[in-house]
Amino acid sequence: EAIDRNELEVACEELSNMKRTMKAKVPKGARDFLPEQMAIREKAFRIVTKVFDRHGAVAIDTPVFELKETLTGKYGEDSKLIYDLADQGGELLSLRYDLTVPLARFLATHKINNLKRYHISRVYRRDNPAIQRGRFREFYQCDFDIAGTFARMVPDAEVIKVLCEVLDELAVVSSFHAKVLSSYKIKVNHRGILDSIFELCGVPKEKMRAISSAVDKLDKESWSSVRSEIVERKGLDPFIADKIGSYVLRRDNPQRMLSSLYEDSQLSSMARSSLEDMELLFKYLGDLGVGDCLIFDLSLARGLDYYTGLIFEAVLTTDSNTSLGSIGAGGRYDNLVDMFSSRSVPCVGCSLGIERILTIFEAAEKEWATSLGRKIKANKTQVLVASIGEQMIGERMKLANELWKGNIAAEFSYAEKPKLNKQLQHALEEEIPLLVIIGEDELKKGMVNLKILATNEQREVNRTDIVSAIKQALNLIQVAADS
Amino acid sequence: EAIDRNELEVACEELSNMKRTMKAKVPKGARDFLPEQMAIREKAFRIVTKVFDRHGAVAIDTPVFELKETLTGKYGEDSKLIYDLADQGGELLSLRYDLTVPLARFLATHKINNLKRYHISRVYRRDNPAIQRGRFREFYQCDFDIAGTFARMVPDAEVIKVLCEVLDELAVVSSFHAKVLSSYKIKVNHRGILDSIFELCGVPKEKMRAISSAVDKLDKESWSSVRSEIVERKGLDPFIADKIGSYVLRRDNPQRMLSSLYEDSQLSSMARSSLEDMELLFKYLGDLGVGDCLIFDLSLARGLDYYTGLIFEAVLTTDSNTSLGSIGAGGRYDNLVDMFSSRSVPCVGCSLGIERILTIFEAAEKEWATSLGRKIKANKTQVLVASIGEQMIGERMKLANELWKGNIAAEFSYAEKPKLNKQLQHALEEEIPLLVIIGEDELKKGMVNLKILATNEQREVNRTDIVSAIKQALNLIQVAADS
Repeated sequence: EAIDRNELEVACEELSNMKRTMKAKVPKGARDFLPEQMAIREKAFRIVTKVFDRHGAVAIDTPVFELKETLTGKYGEDSKLIYDLADQGGELLSLRYDLTVPLARFLATHKINNLKRYHISRVYRRDNPAIQRGRFREFYQCDFDIAGTFARMVPDAEVIKVLCEVLDELAVVSSFHAKVLSSYKIKVNHRGILDSIFELCGVPKEKMRAISSAVDKLDKESWSSVRSEIVERKGLDPFIADKIGSYVLRRDNPQRMLSSLYEDSQLSSMARSSLEDMELLFKYLGDLGVGDCLIFDLSLARGLDYYTGLIFEAVLTTDSNTSLGSIGAGGRYDNLVDMFSSRSVPCVGCSLGIERILTIFEAAEKEWATSLGRKIKANKTQVLVASIGEQMIGERMKLANELWKGNIAAEFSYAEKPKLNKQLQHALEEEIPLLVIIGEDELKKGMVNLKILATNEQREVNRTDIVSAIKQALNLIQVAADS
Repeated sequence: EAIDRNELEVACEELSNMKRTMKAKVPKGARDFLPEQMAIREKAFRIVTKVFDRHGAVAIDTPVFELKETLTGKYGEDSKLIYDLADQGGELLSLRYDLTVPLARFLATHKINNLKRYHISRVYRRDNPAIQRGRFREFYQCDFDIAGTFARMVPDAEVIKVLCEVLDELAVVSSFHAKVLSSYKIKVNHRGILDSIFELCGVPKEKMRAISSAVDKLDKESWSSVRSEIVERKGLDPFIADKIGSYVLRRDNPQRMLSSLYEDSQLSSMARSSLEDMELLFKYLGDLGVGDCLIFDLSLARGLDYYTGLIFEAVLTTDSNTSLGSIGAGGRYDNLVDMFSSRSVPCVGCSLGIERILTIFEAAEKEWATSLGRKIKANKTQVLVASIGEQMIGERMKLANELWKGNIAAEFSYAEKPKLNKQLQHALEEEIPLLVIIGEDELKKGMVNLKILATNEQREVNRTDIVSAIKQALNLIQVAADS
């Protein structure tokens, strides 16, 4: 059987070799990253990583695929969006759908009881792509989670704090994004409060998840549309639907909402512990300096099955960007590790919707560069080793080699007899700040020319001093740029 | 049909929810990376990236999956190792097998005619894993390639230079790896020379690729075994096999091999241009200071179909590590982009076998840490905010928040009433250098304690000066570490 497969492959190959060219297409919903994009993305990822590191988190990574059964039964209705691998013999595998279930599996596999970790990686969803809004089938998530048994609501508060810090730091990088990214709010709610509300309103236990999903659509749909889903499709009494509406349409600042829920004697006795959770959370978030961005929103339900306590979502609030919606979300999931292990490891975490943020970030970086009449510098080259005259490739190579040895980023022209003009143009286009020019006559005197493009200054330097001369010039440029 | 699928999923979920725990298993040949491993790997990747950046290369990325047809017909016999995705409707996809074919597709898709790029990402092969030797089904490759039409053999020389620099830089990081990693050699050969040898020996054109694959096994198998493959399985005359053997068993230093091949009048007239390529390469590699590590090895053939000119392979030469074999390889592939495009874009590049290198690197880093009685520090935390007494969570949070604002990496204890002992122990275990201790009495005076763990020095600091006091202390520790 193995041989048959092989023969088939060979036949296929021959067939494909016959047709000269095939279309060079990227799969639907996936994309390439060009050098400029990579430079911008790496800048954003560095900012995110810096915040995670600053909070003492450690990095982990997991395989891009998991056993199919690891992912089964974790995502509710969204399970249909999971990518499966073909059955080519051996285990049945699926591409990871998020970084949360792999974390739970990871904690179980390695018998870890507490961990503050981040994970920046790609996840996969067979969803309808909406490229303009930053929704892809392959996309990065930046997750920060705290696993372990700790003082009540303390890790929950730090997770929200981290989310705010990331958004703040991304916003200050340039004044362009600041306009958009700094106007975010964190909507918070608690699964325990929601469950009590549904119970109080008379929702049967087996319909709670479905009603919860319906209510979660209130950020995109009107109440009348959600109400008719509850009544017509989920089959609840209109009276129950209206009672649900009297709760879930409420959003307010944390203290006012908390007071009004405490005053609701029936609810406050049923949801006492969840209300206390929220009270504690608001106190801690005040201590952490991020109390002001909170909205207590009773319609926030979150689609995923695994949340058990606090839930939250960061949303952009600028009018022009309402379409971007959620740019980060998370919550507490105390029972997910139990599904893989006999031990219980309570967890809370958040996932940054980095692709949506990057859509804004990229546009802003490009706008910024354009406004300065520059392009985004994708390379890190500091020096172009140029030459005048023939048969200079070897000389350019020798000099470049000395620069590399001195830890200077350098390129040399790959042409046989490059024109000085072209070399200069290349340096300008690629924003390479320095040019070393090797000429035959100078070389005989043991000299080369060093040109600083920003100031157009040029001087002869002793060939043997070139590394230190370049380092000096780079320092001067740096000082000028910083001041 | 969409609804059926959904119902099936829901049924599966319910079934899986019933069985309480499932095994937490990582797919065969894949693995998790724990925090310590991540820290070591990131260190290695930083070194690799630094070298690539120093040569002016830009980063790109491509999707983890490609259209199945993009990968078909590129890998010869190895095509059977490609992972396919399940057909869930829509396009047929496969996981990328290397980073070279995606680069060719990328150049065609974006109509790019020249590019010096690196790509550090995971690739997938349904091979038999050999974990001890660093062979996995999911693994990283670090590729550096130069695409475009340039002076003959110039980019080829820089690619080999880059490979040597990466290996050298990884080796100097600690004296432990230096022992192993610094003893590498670069085997070089040329497809044009090989083809001429086969033609000269009387190998029929249609069997050249098969004979080439057989010859490539000479680094692992004896000549008598390869000879019998050529004679018995590929059906060549024993006389032809022996003539092949008289060539491919030869390896020598570049100049001697070159002279002897030029002296072979029949071969040198058939392979003139390829021999000149190699002569030029050796001259340039001399100029670039890496002439000494070269072996001209006529048995080197490389399995992949797409090479058209220079081929090379970096091997470890220490006796104890011969099992590790190839740690990097590459060559020139001038026709691969043609398969996706009407334009021709000649390319040359190398792929670093980073997992094999990381196996050595990890072992060495751990040995180094153990010899110092330390563990690998996976977090970047600089300060632990500790407290004495009750109800101090809020105070710890407020202080930690000030440190984060000051860009200091800080953690605080998550316990309700943490014991000072435990907090100190945590700092020591996690190699956190500084401890800020908040006590009730000190706080009333507006003071806190700052403790430097390395020196056991402790002093009272004004609560309002804590950020600058910590920065000072961190500088002192850094200076001590550097000297």
